[in-house]
Amino acid sequence: MADVENVPLGDDGKPMSKKALKKQQKDAEKAAKKAQRQQEQADAQQKADADDVSKDLYGDMVMIQSSEKPDRCLQPIGDIGPNLAEKNIWVRGRLHTSRGTGKQCFTVLRHQQSTIQALIFVGEKISKQMVKFCANISKESIVDVYGVVKKVEQKVESCTQDDVEIHIGKIFVVSKAAPQLPLLIEDASRPELEDGKNEEGGRPRVNLDTRLDNRILDLRTTTKQAIFRLEAGVCKLFRDTLTAKGFCEIHTPKIISAASEGGANVFTVSYFKTNAFLAQSPQLYKQMAIAADFEKVFTVGAVFRAEDSNTHRHLTEFVGLDLEMAFQYHYHEVLQVIGDMFISIFKGLRESYQKEITTVARQYPAEPFKFLEPTLILQYPEAVKMLNDAGVEMQDNEDLSTPSEKLLGRLVRQKYDTDYYILDKYPLEVRPFYTMPDPDNPKWSNSYDMFMRGEEILSGAQRIHDPEFLSERAKAHGIDLKTIEAYIDSFKYGCPPHAGGGIGMERVVMLYLGLHNIRSSSLFPRDPKRLTP
Amino acid sequence: MADVENVPLGDDGKPMSKKALKKQQKDAEKAAKKAQRQQEQADAQQKADADDVSKDLYGDMVMIQSSEKPDRCLQPIGDIGPNLAEKNIWVRGRLHTSRGTGKQCFTVLRHQQSTIQALIFVGEKISKQMVKFCANISKESIVDVYGVVKKVEQKVESCTQDDVEIHIGKIFVVSKAAPQLPLLIEDASRPELEDGKNEEGGRPRVNLDTRLDNRILDLRTTTKQAIFRLEAGVCKLFRDTLTAKGFCEIHTPKIISAASEGGANVFTVSYFKTNAFLAQSPQLYKQMAIAADFEKVFTVGAVFRAEDSNTHRHLTEFVGLDLEMAFQYHYHEVLQVIGDMFISIFKGLRESYQKEITTVARQYPAEPFKFLEPTLILQYPEAVKMLNDAGVEMQDNEDLSTPSEKLLGRLVRQKYDTDYYILDKYPLEVRPFYTMPDPDNPKWSNSYDMFMRGEEILSGAQRIHDPEFLSERAKAHGIDLKTIEAYIDSFKYGCPPHAGGGIGMERVVMLYLGLHNIRSSSLFPRDPKRLTP
Repeated sequence: MADVENVPLGDDGKPMSKKALKKQQKDAEKAAKKAQRQQEQADAQQKADADDVSKDLYGDMVMIQSSEKPDRCLQPIGDIGPNLAEKNIWVRGRLHTSRGTGKQCFTVLRHQQSTIQALIFVGEKISKQMVKFCANISKESIVDVYGVVKKVEQKVESCTQDDVEIHIGKIFVVSKAAPQLPLLIEDASRPELEDGKNEEGGRPRVNLDTRLDNRILDLRTTTKQAIFRLEAGVCKLFRDTLTAKGFCEIHTPKIISAASEGGANVFTVSYFKTNAFLAQSPQLYKQMAIAADFEKVFTVGAVFRAEDSNTHRHLTEFVGLDLEMAFQYHYHEVLQVIGDMFISIFKGLRESYQKEITTVARQYPAEPFKFLEPTLILQYPEAVKMLNDAGVEMQDNEDLSTPSEKLLGRLVRQKYDTDYYILDKYPLEVRPFYTMPDPDNPKWSNSYDMFMRGEEILSGAQRIHDPEFLSERAKAHGIDLKTIEAYIDSFKYGCPPHAGGGIGMERVVMLYLGLHNIRSSSLFPRDPKRLTP
Repeated sequence: MADVENVPLGDDGKPMSKKALKKQQKDAEKAAKKAQRQQEQADAQQKADADDVSKDLYGDMVMIQSSEKPDRCLQPIGDIGPNLAEKNIWVRGRLHTSRGTGKQCFTVLRHQQSTIQALIFVGEKISKQMVKFCANISKESIVDVYGVVKKVEQKVESCTQDDVEIHIGKIFVVSKAAPQLPLLIEDASRPELEDGKNEEGGRPRVNLDTRLDNRILDLRTTTKQAIFRLEAGVCKLFRDTLTAKGFCEIHTPKIISAASEGGANVFTVSYFKTNAFLAQSPQLYKQMAIAADFEKVFTVGAVFRAEDSNTHRHLTEFVGLDLEMAFQYHYHEVLQVIGDMFISIFKGLRESYQKEITTVARQYPAEPFKFLEPTLILQYPEAVKMLNDAGVEMQDNEDLSTPSEKLLGRLVRQKYDTDYYILDKYPLEVRPFYTMPDPDNPKWSNSYDMFMRGEEILSGAQRIHDPEFLSERAKAHGIDLKTIEAYIDSFKYGCPPHAGGGIGMERVVMLYLGLHNIRSSSLFPRDPKRLTP
């Protein structure tokens, strides 16, 4: 047994041949050498790490769990300029791009709409290891950088902060991004002429579905940052203008017991043991608020349309900016308020959101939005005549088709130099039953639409506030009175004459900025085919 | 045949008896006299109408259809005071009450939160007919009144404009209310001590269901007018304060593809050929906005809970005031912002809504709302100790029961003289999986609730922003990672540390004003049993 033990056995359990034995010895030597080499490398690395002059100046931060409150001011990137030259500052930003060459690394840091160049060179205090670490940080990671601000001789064309750069002294990763990104912010930021049609040159583009599937990344582009800040501005201006005019904000229910517009295009909800619906508009509730003496109301909220429309301007869920107002004697009092409100919004955007408008125009070039003060109000027959003169065959009691609206927009712009106008006095027969007929000619109605760049953004009217007349008109439209009893009863205990309208927020933003698709102005858009993210 | 014709026949076709004949003659004479009397009365009426000196000074207006734009200024009732004494003015208001005695009629006109007395007497220019017409106008009808403002010697206790009255010269009905009202505004306005418990005396009251069934009328009470104006103020102050701090308003989708909190208490929606859900909170989308670099966001919108809770403080649909904020190193940066924001709201209400607060207190007496500046922040163990000292048996790792919260509210008020405070550092095990644990002691968490008058109005926390750690915590909670994959992936491409919270708008208003039921601060409330109006 002892002998057997001394004879080396092969993998097959049999004693090995001399040749095999020799090979094994050689392999063992090789392995030993390799191990030694590795050990030496590790020792060298350890020594290098120990010798790394910069070892406390970079690294991955532990997850910020609120364990300390350092007395440190993080400078917003957008505020960094020559005024901070030669100052040492801390900034937090995304690693937008980086390019390392061994001894140095050029990065661009990004914060919302602002970008700045930040560089690091091997030097007295900066080790090779530190530069390498910096070059290896994955794009879109969030970093805290400490460095000195330096003026630059030549403008940094690729950055918003183009007259300064940061020389990095410390860099720590706050939150690491996965190394593979489904889209690159640079690609998602390239100028687009129209949806699908890009500038020539063949550089990578990001299509709409990829953008929407990875919305978190897409929203980080300076363009999207600007769009949604401007959108917040539209809502703010809408509310502030109306509040200043004595309007009261209300909140109307989204879950309702009866389909508001006759049951078509409505989403059904399971409501405990019964069914309910999602409101297609807050109109009934706005009108009830008027009947309840709130006099002037507005509401901003979700509106739902179960319409299987897959177009550039339809969403199944959007934000409605709705208003309703009791008037004294004539619905033009309301039209005036709405017209002035739009002018306030457009002026407010022009005054306070110029940075956002410019940012968006870099990716989506568009002519500046034009409007007249006071608002241009056209009569329906006048518009039909303009279309007739331009070769469109239609009668003045027909509704406008989408192409006619677009064409009319161009004709009005040529003639009046405005992208925004109101069309008043629609034919009664193309409007809903609750629309007040014109007092002098039953062919027309006290109703109006508003347009931006040839697309409708608001539809409104004087509503019938007399319950008997409302019933009469509903019957004339062939509507079963039982289905709208609650609506009609809302006017039974006295209601002032009133008018109003509903605006699609995403449309206003899309058309104001000249975007090509409403999905660009909806944070997380919903359409018949998209429910995520 | 001729003879037969001359013999009168009775109703039975047989010739009549003499007695019957005599009676018939008498009846005929009576009828003739009656007809004559009627004719005379009609003539007199006609003559009287023709003679009616006031005939152009009153009547029912034809429905206002925007046929004219009279140059007439309608004075808001709330603006009428001694400064207008002896002036002739036009007002439009509801006929709140009226009391006629033949020769005179006392009315009260109402406009939103304001009321004024208006009287009419038979006189040189005012006919009996006009006074009668006035006395017969149904309550809640809308009238246009022209008259002279007169100072009164004794204050009109029942009206807000108590030092003047209007002597009516003209009165026209703009919109007629049905004569039978399902509830009287006067009854719906009487002081209530607690829901269901009213002041003694037995005068008619209106119960909650009657109010809600006839919400349009109920909302006309000065109390409700004030509540919803103050509610609009809460939203405005919330938004303005945060906007001034650099927050960006966002709009998050209500229709979502996966139930956000694990599928319990969620409403299901039919979405074309599939099913979707109504968002129980905008949290995921607020966090995605943070991961998308919006940094500080807020959103105001509908939130849905399919909870079968029929309590004074639960709704199935309510308005969420939500915010989320990236911070630098410690979640207390966010807590500070939220605390300061509430103080801004409370101060803003105290400064700009005193009229509304006073109006509401007339019907719902409550102690004025107290708060400290800066916000009182208590540690959870401290609160548990206060409760233990007050006799409540509980451990410091248990959640607070609703009665304990209420009691704690009273204890805190006694000790610190505030109705509003923050409770920080909840036990980790009573909070959701995405809550960041305390860095030093895993028993606690970086989470907080806020209370008003002992009821929770905000719940919030630092959220875990690291996807690996989030997965680990989800697993520890027994959650199937597949169901929250999209949520975890939101943090894959780098996310700053962040914290936030969600506020129930209706609760803030209810508790600020000391109302007894959340249905009082929801315009058209939704609960498991109510879907209308």
